[in-house]
Formats: sequence, structure tokens, C-alpha cells
Amino acid sequence: MHEISNGEILGALRELNARRVLIQTPEGLKREAQSLADFLEENGIEAIISGDINYGACDPADREARLLGCDALIHLGHSYMRLNLEVPTIFVPAFAKVDVVPSLEKNLDEIKKLGEKIALVTTAQHIHQLERAREFLEKEGFEVVFGRGDSRVSWPGQVLGCNFSAAKVEAEGVLFIGAGYFHPLGVALATKKPTLAVNPYSGDAIWMNKEVEHLVRKRWAQIAKAMDTKKFGVITSTKKGQLRLAEAKRVVELLREHGKYARLIAMNHISYPALEGFDFDAYVVVACPRVPIDDYENWRKPVLTPRELELLLGLTEEYEFDEIAGAERKDDEPSGISVKR
Amino acid sequence: MHEISNGEILGALRELNARRVLIQTPEGLKREAQSLADFLEENGIEAIISGDINYGACDPADREARLLGCDALIHLGHSYMRLNLEVPTIFVPAFAKVDVVPSLEKNLDEIKKLGEKIALVTTAQHIHQLERAREFLEKEGFEVVFGRGDSRVSWPGQVLGCNFSAAKVEAEGVLFIGAGYFHPLGVALATKKPTLAVNPYSGDAIWMNKEVEHLVRKRWAQIAKAMDTKKFGVITSTKKGQLRLAEAKRVVELLREHGKYARLIAMNHISYPALEGFDFDAYVVVACPRVPIDDYENWRKPVLTPRELELLLGLTEEYEFDEIAGAERKDDEPSGISVKR
Repeated sequence: MHEISNGEILGALRELNARRVLIQTPEGLKREAQSLADFLEENGIEAIISGDINYGACDPADREARLLGCDALIHLGHSYMRLNLEVPTIFVPAFAKVDVVPSLEKNLDEIKKLGEKIALVTTAQHIHQLERAREFLEKEGFEVVFGRGDSRVSWPGQVLGCNFSAAKVEAEGVLFIGAGYFHPLGVALATKKPTLAVNPYSGDAIWMNKEVEHLVRKRWAQIAKAMDTKKFGVITSTKKGQLRLAEAKRVVELLREHGKYARLIAMNHISYPALEGFDFDAYVVVACPRVPIDDYENWRKPVLTPRELELLLGLTEEYEFDEIAGAERKDDEPSGISVKR
Repeated sequence: MHEISNGEILGALRELNARRVLIQTPEGLKREAQSLADFLEENGIEAIISGDINYGACDPADREARLLGCDALIHLGHSYMRLNLEVPTIFVPAFAKVDVVPSLEKNLDEIKKLGEKIALVTTAQHIHQLERAREFLEKEGFEVVFGRGDSRVSWPGQVLGCNFSAAKVEAEGVLFIGAGYFHPLGVALATKKPTLAVNPYSGDAIWMNKEVEHLVRKRWAQIAKAMDTKKFGVITSTKKGQLRLAEAKRVVELLREHGKYARLIAMNHISYPALEGFDFDAYVVVACPRVPIDDYENWRKPVLTPRELELLLGLTEEYEFDEIAGAERKDDEPSGISVKR
């Protein structure tokens, strides 16, 4: 696992005999995408940049690549996710350069509160340092474990904002390495174990269990707002890795069985303004769990996850995070820089 | 030509043996889309609503329909445009209920200034009243003509924001019936004839030729801003009816021949915020002409049409509107409510 060079990408494209490629990039790698396009064209491969903002491997531009007559797609910044893709796709993850060990050293006293046997997880950006982190922690006397995760993730110990399968191992507590709130919140909710998030950039450590309590209170407020409403829009996404059609149809049926009006909506980028004008009192988003949880303040109607709807309908009692499970993982699946043909 | 009923749509779907359909709607017909979905489900056809905002027949959700396992697409609010569609598509235009004749009566003195032989054009919303308007004008002593238009439009006398082929007939002046500035501006620019726009809602009439002068001055200001820039992003759209790939590649080549740096970008919804972060000094939009002309104030970089780039490079001297021509029209092409298989 290492930083991937433009030369390696060119090599992979030559192996594919690609003559025209589409390059897809997250917000933070736009200049790199442009440099890569320049480099490929200097080397005789026509390169088109996708200008659509991309947030994850769940939204590959493979259809667009096919439409544009491209022989391959280069997906920058995210690791391989198992999806049925229409063109060969090269996933090029971006690894952060920050060293994670100093932040662990600094927070050793807090980490000790997790117990002796700890689960260690991180995001794709820091996954290349997971072994270093494990070695450091083992020297400090911890027993460190992490799961392989299901087919939605690329590496053992990797968590996504919608998948915490790698964190679900036998341990007293979970140590998350990375920036941001959403991933460690999900880890704490999904594992229901003491979870400490250590930020390798700032060196800060935050106990997530208080944050979880705060989130669950806010989510119950959303559920309460939707309690007496009659008309539900059930939204799924046309992004390939978020198109949970069977689950969305199950939610529609569930609502109808409980005497509600429900209508299935499919959209690409899910945001409230595009829904203004429809006659719904509340929405259930059966796509990326970040939409209802991170973005609900921009919605003028209550917006729930499928799990939250089950709470509303009284079918369950305990708050559960809306995870997206991957299909069964095969040993020969590629990871890192990977070509999906 | 008449208002299309839900019953007729159901009939067309039954002929197609459709069991699941996707309904696509413009902003103004969302409630109608929802009622239609309810009606179809009461009649045993599963209906999914597309939540993506749609601005025209140039952006059919046929790929999304296929992805969602739908047997057909219902496209509300726009008339048939000849495109290579992936599922059978029913185009259901929406006709405005306003009577156009009173606004013509009111503005007869102005209309007379166009001359005796006038070209008459309108948008899809009022196309069902074109014959009534013609009869009224002929009774008033005018000779009224209109073109059939190329394959991009559905009806003789219909103009789009990107296609004024139906207005290009031998006449002294052009009478446009409809609301909004963009269409009659394009008519005046494309025909270079005196153009009067009569709004059937307000009863107002506006001479477009002053407006054209104003627009052309603003556009020259954009061209001037881009004059000394080196790095151009050339943007095309992945919306099927706006994917002008050959033209975009021609523009890239043209820029490079003139010593500029140029890079091809493809995106679905073209807006400046998604481009922030790339290293370009100016953009050429080879997609919908409304983007550079109507939306340029929201761009922090100069944004031009392909025609405007040719002015910048000194290849032409006269300002031309960026029209999108349709392919050759065949007599057996459907129009109005039409099923494209």
C-alpha cells in the first residue's frame, strides 16, 4: 500500500488498451485530477474530467464513461466498492500523509480507559498506517483486533460512513483514528461499545458515547415530528452504491400496511429543494444515511432513515444506525488500486 | 392536440405491457406527477417518481428508468425530442390554458409594425393555439408563415431555447407568442429580423431587438474578460440532448491550435460551484446555451458559448446565438403524446 503514481495509472490503462478515459474526483483532488488528465494526454490517452462532485465509491461515473465513449473510468480518492460497473474502473485511493502515532502517544491515558482488548478502525485515508498503529499499541500492552469487514469495504479495519462491519469484533472498546464526527458516531452506534476517536491532524481525542446520546436525542425529535403525519415520500438514490431499491420498496409496503400514504421517489443528488412542491409530510431516505442525519437541518419536513421509521411505527425500540451491508466478499476481490472489468 | 388524460397514459402503458414506470416532471407539474403515480398504482402499474429537477426533453431519465427496472418512462411537460432512448418513453406535453387571441388583439398596432408577411412562432405550452392565432392574424390581413423546424422540435412553429429552426422562414418580421425573455431573444438573434414578443398572460408586447443589443453588449463584455486568459475548461453535459461531444472536442482542438490550454469536462447539472477548485481561467459551455447566457452572473470566471469563443479567437465577427440543430426529421416521427420505443 503506497501513494499511487500517474505512471502506474498509465500502465494500468495501457494494459486495458484504453484510448479514452473519464476521470472522477472528490472535491479535494481536483488539481490532481487535472494534472493526471494532462499527463495522460501527453502520453496519448484522451482524458475527460467529470465535473460532477463525487462523495464516494458508491457513486461511480461508469454510466457517464460509457455514454462518453470512454474505455475506462479512473475513480480518484476512494477505494474499491463491489458494484456492477459498466466499464473497467481503476480505483485510486488517496492516503493522508499525516503520521498517526504521535496522536496515539499523546492520548495513551484515554485509550487505556477503553480496556486491554481494543478494536482498531479507521477510514481509507489512514488505512495504510493501521499496522503501524497496531504495532505501537501492542508495544504499549494492548491486545489489538479488527475485522475484515464485508464486501463494501476494501481493507480490514476500514469503516465507511454507512458500514461499520470491520468494527464489529470482540473487544472491550473501539479506537477510531481519523478526522470528522460522522464515522466515529456510526462506529459507536453500530458497536454499542465505548468508542474513542483520535484525530491524527489535531491530536485531539473525543469520547463518542456522549455524542451518540446527543445524536439519538436529536433523531428522536425528528421521529416525533413525523409521528402523526400521513404522507411519506420514500427516497432512494440512482447512485449505484446507494440504490437500495428492495429496501425502499419494503419501506413503502411497511408504511402502507400501517395505513400511511407512501410513494417511491428516485433521485440522484438527494436534497430538499428539489422535493419542494410534492405533497408529502415527511420523508424516509433509503440511500446514504448521511443525508437524513447530517443534512436534516436543511429540510423543511421531517426526514428519517428506514431504522428510524421502524421506531416510529413501534416495530423496534432501540435506536439503530442505518448501515448498508455489502454482499459476500470473495478472496480474489481487488483492493487499493484496482481494476474492475 | 388536446390536454392528455391519465386514462390515455394508462392506455399507452397497457399497450406497452408496462408493469413498472418512472415518471419525470418539471418543477411546475409535481402535484400532477404525484396524482398520476397514484392513479397508475390504483390501476396495477407500479410507479416511481423521479425527484431530480427536469428542465427539458433534452434530459430524459431513460437511463435511470432502466436502472430502476422500469419498462417505460413518462416524461411530463415537454414534447418529444429525437434522442436514442433506452426504454419506451411517453412524452406528455402540458398545454397552457390561457387564450392567446386577446393579447394579439390588444397589440395589433405593434404587430402591424412587423410588416405584412410575418413569421409566427411559440413554445410547446401554446403550440395548440398556433392555428387559432394564425386565423385571427389572417383575418386582420397578415400573411402568416411558420417553418416545420428540424427534428429537435415536435411541431411546426415551435421554438426551443436552443433551436429556432421553425422561425427561419421568409418573412418581414417575427411574432413570438409566450412568456419569458430567453426564447424571443434567441428568435431575434437567430433570425436577425424585427421580433415582437407578445405575452398571453400579461398582454404585454416587447420589441426584442433592443434587448438583443443589450444582450450582445453583455456577451462582448464576457468575451473581453476571457480575451487574455490561457486555461480553458470546455464543458459538455451528460444530459442526452445536451451531450455535444463532437462540438466540444472541436472547441478543445480550436483552443489548442490557438495556443491555449484546454481540457474537456463532462458534467450533469452545470453550475459554477462544482467547478471551483479546478485550475481554469475561463469556460466554454458546449451544452445548453442558457447556462452561459442566463446564469453567467453566478460564475466567478468568464463563461462563453462556442460561437462566442470563435469571436474571441477572431474567427468570426458577427455575434451568433448558440443553437443546437436537430438531426434530419423523418415524416413518421411521433409528436405530442408519443411513445418512443
